[in-house]
Amino acid sequence: MKSFRKELWFETSHRRQLINITPEIASALAESGIKEGLVLCNAMHITASVFINDDEPGLHQDFEKWLEKLAPEKPYSQYQHNGYEDNADAHLKRTIMGHEVVVAVTRGKLDLGPWEQIFYGEFDGMRRKRVLIKIIGE
Amino acid sequence: MKSFRKELWFETSHRRQLINITPEIASALAESGIKEGLVLCNAMHITASVFINDDEPGLHQDFEKWLEKLAPEKPYSQYQHNGYEDNADAHLKRTIMGHEVVVAVTRGKLDLGPWEQIFYGEFDGMRRKRVLIKIIGE
Amino acid sequence: MKSFRKELWFETSHRRQLINITPEIASALAESGIKEGLVLCNAMHITASVFINDDEPGLHQDFEKWLEKLAPEKPYSQYQHNGYEDNADAHLKRTIMGHEVVVAVTRGKLDLGPWEQIFYGEFDGMRRKRVLIKIIGE
Repeated sequence: MKSFRKELWFETSHRRQLINITPEIASALAESGIKEGLVLCNAMHITASVFINDDEPGLHQDFEKWLEKLAPEKPYSQYQHNGYEDNADAHLKRTIMGHEVVVAVTRGKLDLGPWEQIFYGEFDGMRRKRVLIKIIGE
Repeated sequence: MKSFRKELWFETSHRRQLINITPEIASALAESGIKEGLVLCNAMHITASVFINDDEPGLHQDFEKWLEKLAPEKPYSQYQHNGYEDNADAHLKRTIMGHEVVVAVTRGKLDLGPWEQIFYGEFDGMRRKRVLIKIIGE
Repeated sequence: MKSFRKELWFETSHRRQLINITPEIASALAESGIKEGLVLCNAMHITASVFINDDEPGLHQDFEKWLEKLAPEKPYSQYQHNGYEDNADAHLKRTIMGHEVVVAVTRGKLDLGPWEQIFYGEFDGMRRKRVLIKIIGE
């Protein structure tokens, strides 16, 4: 069994931002030399997400509006967590979007459906944060 | 390390439908010959889900009502994604339900709790769509 | 490839409770002797969750309030599932929180970010329930 590890670093320009990281994960997979196995890709922070969905800007606006409805950022005082912080909403938003994805590796490629793309979802940005890619297989 | 890959295809008769796919995954596992490892099972589409829950029809009605409350299908015009599409709600519903499950394989069996069943959750159906089963182990 | 399996058992004193299980998973990993691979940790019950977030009591109060807003426990009669049961809300709450986590193993350690902690989320407690830890790797 082989294993491979790589970190991706981000510092977004906005508090909330969705970034397509499929090319970076495909590169890491090529670098690993693994042909059959599993890729785990997860945010290493509790206010960010890695998830799979469609790379369509309208949908991304819908996510922003919908997450604000389900877990509004303001007023900050509505959350107990916001004593010294203002990011309780980011913990909740990322809970809905998910912490990690696991993707199959088949014949050396990410085994994704036609519209599936992997995203980093930042909900408390403008600071350096990272994603872990771990690949195991042969 | 061994690996095994299989696709399951679906064409549901309704826009939204939950289908118990535990027997198909158990069959794929038996076919793989893998005794210890992990099964990844994921929707290959961005408007469908694979998730684990109880196979109880009342609960499935509760899911339908609850998802419609959190991410209503109509009016279609409430979503930016619905320019050429009408399925933005399906992207949101599947986000809540989850994209994939990872299940342990122990002594050649799916290592599930007593009430755990694996479902395909379709939220934009009446077209051919598929699920990926990837098993790695020994 | 090596594999390792362990169950953790819980009987919470409240209907809903969040328990940090990171030390137990780290112990299981040490016991396994696996240095590189993946840990799967999942609730074996359909009304409980395993998830990753921050071990901060204020945030845990926010989760309680937020999940009650999105999927209220009462009135029990609002759910079809509650014919012989009263736990439909627990199925929905756990759906939001997630069923399982997959965590990388690197150099014999759980490869977690600085604030990442793994929790058992109980939503229908006061009975014996369990979590599965499955580790594969080398």
